[in-house]
Amino acid sequence: MSKVFFDIAVSLDGFVAGDHRGPHNTIGDGGMALHQWMFVQKAFWEHLGVDDGQEDGPDGKIIRDVIARTGTCIMGKRMFEEGEPNWPENLFKSDVYVLTHEKRSPWIQKGNTTFYFINDGIASALGKARESAGRKDIRIMGGAETIQQFLNAGVVDECILHLTPVLLGSGKRLFDKIHMDQFEFAISGVTQSARTTHLFYTIRNK
Amino acid sequence: MSKVFFDIAVSLDGFVAGDHRGPHNTIGDGGMALHQWMFVQKAFWEHLGVDDGQEDGPDGKIIRDVIARTGTCIMGKRMFEEGEPNWPENLFKSDVYVLTHEKRSPWIQKGNTTFYFINDGIASALGKARESAGRKDIRIMGGAETIQQFLNAGVVDECILHLTPVLLGSGKRLFDKIHMDQFEFAISGVTQSARTTHLFYTIRNK
Repeated sequence: MSKVFFDIAVSLDGFVAGDHRGPHNTIGDGGMALHQWMFVQKAFWEHLGVDDGQEDGPDGKIIRDVIARTGTCIMGKRMFEEGEPNWPENLFKSDVYVLTHEKRSPWIQKGNTTFYFINDGIASALGKARESAGRKDIRIMGGAETIQQFLNAGVVDECILHLTPVLLGSGKRLFDKIHMDQFEFAISGVTQSARTTHLFYTIRNK
Repeated sequence: MSKVFFDIAVSLDGFVAGDHRGPHNTIGDGGMALHQWMFVQKAFWEHLGVDDGQEDGPDGKIIRDVIARTGTCIMGKRMFEEGEPNWPENLFKSDVYVLTHEKRSPWIQKGNTTFYFINDGIASALGKARESAGRKDIRIMGGAETIQQFLNAGVVDECILHLTPVLLGSGKRLFDKIHMDQFEFAISGVTQSARTTHLFYTIRNK
């Protein structure tokens, strides 16, 4: 069966985005530093069909692995709205389920990215994502509140934290409003480069 | 020259202690879970002269390495006061400089632990600690506020975070009130067991 996972870059002080986020400042003040490790990877640009990137080491392998296992994506409405004007076409190359309160017809991009807008809750989104994913996995993209919702619902199986050695000081925390008696993390691996540390956990839901 | 370092157990959500800390609840609610990896290590008990502990693997090696490099310890007054009624005699086996506002004569324990009470600031404590440490290193024990003071003063060279897969939800954060423009972290290594992940960083002070 498909696994539900998230992978997200997080600062040493636990933030996944800085303050003042918006369509013109998508990861907030200082937040871009969390993703620098990714922007220099050949694997990242390859996925976009661009020949760029200086590195192809342990960080690149993680990117390839995550892309290979992902059958379907789920994201929150704010992440979608911040990304919509910025993302290149067919970035996700899969169905993407966007959690929203609005009614909106699917947005079909050139390639194989289709955004579906789900307004009846995370269980509904997850059900549709499972159908779409086939044997591949379901990736909860973010933001933090969406990840928290899925964690608290007890439906996340695994996660990868890309722990990046910067401090943001303020912004959006990854682990906030968590129901800690609902699940436990177990260490399942680590890969490190000079840029970031990829921490792998499995999640036992109670 | 001696290096100044700290090593501290931290939860996945960035806390080094839970709420309601005091002499009868030294690491606060849930905080003891941060240190479970340590309590099962032979190396930890050996240091106390006790034959106990079930494990002697990568976690034990870290404990031995930290003990071996430590020439002198520095700690905050609250950590001292919470520990004073609980610590076994000669736990630190070195001079310990306690930051306080009080005047108090040194407290000499059986063995080679002597606590000195410093009431004229961290530079004074660090100067005395450097003399005491000889060629060994100076370990900033904690708590979080003491570590923050030394980080913000630009005098910390290295740190080890023992990132433990628990969530505390509230308590004392390691990285709080940090002057982020004063220093940078650089990844220098990682060691992982099933219990915790030891993250090594060097610190570049600007």
